[in-house]
Amino acid sequence: MAAELTAHELIAKHRPTLDQALEAIRTRAYWSPHPEHPKAYGENGSLDMAAGKAAFDALLGSRLDLGQPGTDDWVGGETSPYGIELGVNYPHADLDELLPAMKAGQRAWRDAGAEMRAVVCLEILKRISDRTHEFAHAVMHTSGQAFMMAFQAGGPHAQDRGLEAVAYAYVEQVRTPDTAEWTKPQGKRDPLALTKQFTPVPRGVALVIGCNTFPTWNGYPGLFASLATGNAVLVKPHPRAVLPLALTVQVAREVLVEAGFDANLVALAAERPGEGIAKTLATRPEIRIIDYTGSTSFGDWLEANARQAQVYTEKAGVNTVLVDSAANYKGMLSNLAFSLSLYSGQMCTTPQNLLIPRDGIRTDEGPKTFDEVVADLARAVDGLLGDDARANALLGAIVNPDVKARLEAAAGLGEVALASREIANPEFPDAVVRTPVIVKLDGAKPDDEAAYMSECFGPVSFAVAVDSSAEAVELLRRTIREKGAMTVGAYTTDAEVEDAIQEVCLEESAQLSLNLTGGVYVNQTAAFSDFHGSGGNPAANAALCDGAFVANRFRVVEVRREAQGQA
Amino acid sequence: MAAELTAHELIAKHRPTLDQALEAIRTRAYWSPHPEHPKAYGENGSLDMAAGKAAFDALLGSRLDLGQPGTDDWVGGETSPYGIELGVNYPHADLDELLPAMKAGQRAWRDAGAEMRAVVCLEILKRISDRTHEFAHAVMHTSGQAFMMAFQAGGPHAQDRGLEAVAYAYVEQVRTPDTAEWTKPQGKRDPLALTKQFTPVPRGVALVIGCNTFPTWNGYPGLFASLATGNAVLVKPHPRAVLPLALTVQVAREVLVEAGFDANLVALAAERPGEGIAKTLATRPEIRIIDYTGSTSFGDWLEANARQAQVYTEKAGVNTVLVDSAANYKGMLSNLAFSLSLYSGQMCTTPQNLLIPRDGIRTDEGPKTFDEVVADLARAVDGLLGDDARANALLGAIVNPDVKARLEAAAGLGEVALASREIANPEFPDAVVRTPVIVKLDGAKPDDEAAYMSECFGPVSFAVAVDSSAEAVELLRRTIREKGAMTVGAYTTDAEVEDAIQEVCLEESAQLSLNLTGGVYVNQTAAFSDFHGSGGNPAANAALCDGAFVANRFRVVEVRREAQGQA
Repeated sequence: MAAELTAHELIAKHRPTLDQALEAIRTRAYWSPHPEHPKAYGENGSLDMAAGKAAFDALLGSRLDLGQPGTDDWVGGETSPYGIELGVNYPHADLDELLPAMKAGQRAWRDAGAEMRAVVCLEILKRISDRTHEFAHAVMHTSGQAFMMAFQAGGPHAQDRGLEAVAYAYVEQVRTPDTAEWTKPQGKRDPLALTKQFTPVPRGVALVIGCNTFPTWNGYPGLFASLATGNAVLVKPHPRAVLPLALTVQVAREVLVEAGFDANLVALAAERPGEGIAKTLATRPEIRIIDYTGSTSFGDWLEANARQAQVYTEKAGVNTVLVDSAANYKGMLSNLAFSLSLYSGQMCTTPQNLLIPRDGIRTDEGPKTFDEVVADLARAVDGLLGDDARANALLGAIVNPDVKARLEAAAGLGEVALASREIANPEFPDAVVRTPVIVKLDGAKPDDEAAYMSECFGPVSFAVAVDSSAEAVELLRRTIREKGAMTVGAYTTDAEVEDAIQEVCLEESAQLSLNLTGGVYVNQTAAFSDFHGSGGNPAANAALCDGAFVANRFRVVEVRREAQGQA
Repeated sequence: MAAELTAHELIAKHRPTLDQALEAIRTRAYWSPHPEHPKAYGENGSLDMAAGKAAFDALLGSRLDLGQPGTDDWVGGETSPYGIELGVNYPHADLDELLPAMKAGQRAWRDAGAEMRAVVCLEILKRISDRTHEFAHAVMHTSGQAFMMAFQAGGPHAQDRGLEAVAYAYVEQVRTPDTAEWTKPQGKRDPLALTKQFTPVPRGVALVIGCNTFPTWNGYPGLFASLATGNAVLVKPHPRAVLPLALTVQVAREVLVEAGFDANLVALAAERPGEGIAKTLATRPEIRIIDYTGSTSFGDWLEANARQAQVYTEKAGVNTVLVDSAANYKGMLSNLAFSLSLYSGQMCTTPQNLLIPRDGIRTDEGPKTFDEVVADLARAVDGLLGDDARANALLGAIVNPDVKARLEAAAGLGEVALASREIANPEFPDAVVRTPVIVKLDGAKPDDEAAYMSECFGPVSFAVAVDSSAEAVELLRRTIREKGAMTVGAYTTDAEVEDAIQEVCLEESAQLSLNLTGGVYVNQTAAFSDFHGSGGNPAANAALCDGAFVANRFRVVEVRREAQGQA
């Protein structure tokens, strides 16, 4: 059967986008082919708002049959953080049947070459993009993100990160030419001459272990990096966030088949409640690459035990914002208030510890005491979230009971500067919506240190009083080194303090945002330009996305022969 | 004190060479800036043959004081495989003093940037190149290589591999620009605008654990890849092969100081007999990168235990040559005879198992039985090594008593098709010089399988009778998968067999040489063009040299601020 999508068509359609992505990762200027505005969808085959909602509603209570071999059962049972039962059932796999089936199509996928793989990946991303409105609901009702955030972070921003990974994978594979003629002079004798072929070959089957909070955004880089480098990819979603990745697998399988490849190059591994198949999968000999986002303890377990695989982990960290002085006090407060509130602080990039000198800071509005800074920040958060509709749109829902329990316990850790409030969600009355809590701690007290030196994932921040900015810089260093950090923020007007903070971030390998007061926040990164994590501190062993993230997902095999005309 | 070597001078001197290296790794055509012929040296500051010998002789019995901090003793005691005592003493380090001292200069080295680091590395390589004649003797009298091989493999070829690593390291670091202006449109509102700085930062101190047989060739890629990416490098040579790497460290320290950097960015860790400091060093928290060449058992130990470091290993493998049929029977025999003989088979790339159908093969000289092929190969080796002077020049000396013992035991493993002979070396009467042994084994016998499925490092080859070429292909697959392989060779005139062999090498990630009959041998690879190892089978977890070999030796730290004129 001829492929419905030929290489020629796919290259004609997607090569210009690939070239723009390659240029963007080189210049790191702003670029995205995926519209951020919901109204941009609805033409040229993409679903508009109503059609996306209808498509999502049609999924509820359905069986998502992906046509996978070795399906021995149907499993499901996601409950939205907004309270509704999704009721979608997914294939449960007999691994001894599914994994061999995933390897069957690898030779053709390998032989297709780097460019064909890239444009097939771009076609997958294009079809996901067309269904962004449908995916937005799927992300919202698994992660608890508010609709607009689920739409943007789960849609175009996730697709950007996937495309970025494809671009890095492509450029890495074509660094070595397909063939080379090698001719070495031998003085008066005939030269030595060899013809060499170089082929990028996959490592095997790659495993993506998804997370609850950002199933697509954190899942796509590994998925597309592995697929674009010739590997088959098995997707093991978080049991509470299966749907967005199951839909992704569905789209990938459709496109692969239409392009003449084996559907089983991408497959889903859903699990029964409590089955815990991640450990089983991660140590299967077929699995040669693992991408994981989640807890430090399981990430460490994977790094120690999945020794047959390349393991890329994003784990927990303790993110710090150092407040030394402010040239725009109001801007700092509103920027920080937004960062603490967005998605109820349930981002791996949300600041946790705000280090503030106990003697206060200099600002453009005059000196401010420690208590004034904290009170002003609390007021800024209150102001931002004062209107319930706006609060719901910013906060989303608490993703799971663990986060809620952590939030409730945090109030007992110190003096509460801003109490968490319950917000009613008129559309989803069962949603658990909470504003962030800010707790004052003393940097010098050992009990307090135990609190602020642990990750408290969720809408919890600590305003930590420190003796001086110099002490804050050293505490920042120790926090990054011992606990890791996905992000660091700092506010200062003092060039020496700024230098000291930068030097700590360079030495401890942490990404730094300085004096943000406008519409960019420390917890947001843009694909093609910002690195997400550094891969150089304990929070993550890889960065999204760089050469190191893709270069070891394939190997180059050389076949050399004497050139025609040689002995 | 002003640096004697300015950035301007170094860039003017070395940038053209760096650019040529960058072009060579892109085209993979033949290129080398390091002359292979001994007579090419002696002008423009390089040592000629006599001066190189004199420089080496002056080292004998000396104390090589590198001026390292924390030197608490002097250690040495290398005996040449050619019988002479080197008597050179090296600094023994107090690690608690040396390691912190190595970190002191890292900030300036990091801030110098990728181009400056590259040209400083090129200046180090240039000065090593100028002393190639001296290094040749140091390599010869530690590895046991014959002079010409020690000269070429230990000199220009090693320097090529070092330069190749610098080129890969440079290009990887400059993929991300130093700065970027990011401007994101916001419809009718002002765009968001950020200024971003990107800095490649080192991981920490890198450790190079050298090997006995190719101290410079196997040591330089890791050393220069780590140094060029901003790391300090501690070199731990094999206790029997200290001198070539100690001289390398000496040159590096001289150049670093002249260029205005801290000498301690490169240091030596020599050890007392039996001290075994590799394990201690490998698990020190300061050590964040390890490059190792040696046994599988210690390589596996490093991968399992040095968890704080990126570990790059080249371990043991079982190299196969599959003989299916020959279009140039004589060429095949002479090519194989050379491969088996060079450096007494003491290369990680030397073929061990020759898989030959028991019913014989087709050749341009008519059909040949299994016994005929083996006898003809034995005769070819005998002919090649019939003259003692030529034999000494090809074989070199047996590097250590373990290899000699293994060679002697091999004769008991099966029917000896070619017995090993002792060759007298008139210049060095104590040298242990031996011709290779070829032992016939039966691929179907379990006892024989135990022999040919283990690495027997040294001048030992097994002619393994197999039922068919199809069986040979499957045995090849199993050997690569279970034991690893640095090289695979094959001879065939049958397109189907050739396809099957290629497919196995692509699936199992092994580098293949097909039908070599001239002056290129399966055990030789050329920098800038051939990959040494694949990094995809158990023989090595990295290839020399590719993007993956350098990309994770540094991380990129981003500092972002609102652009001038923003809120």
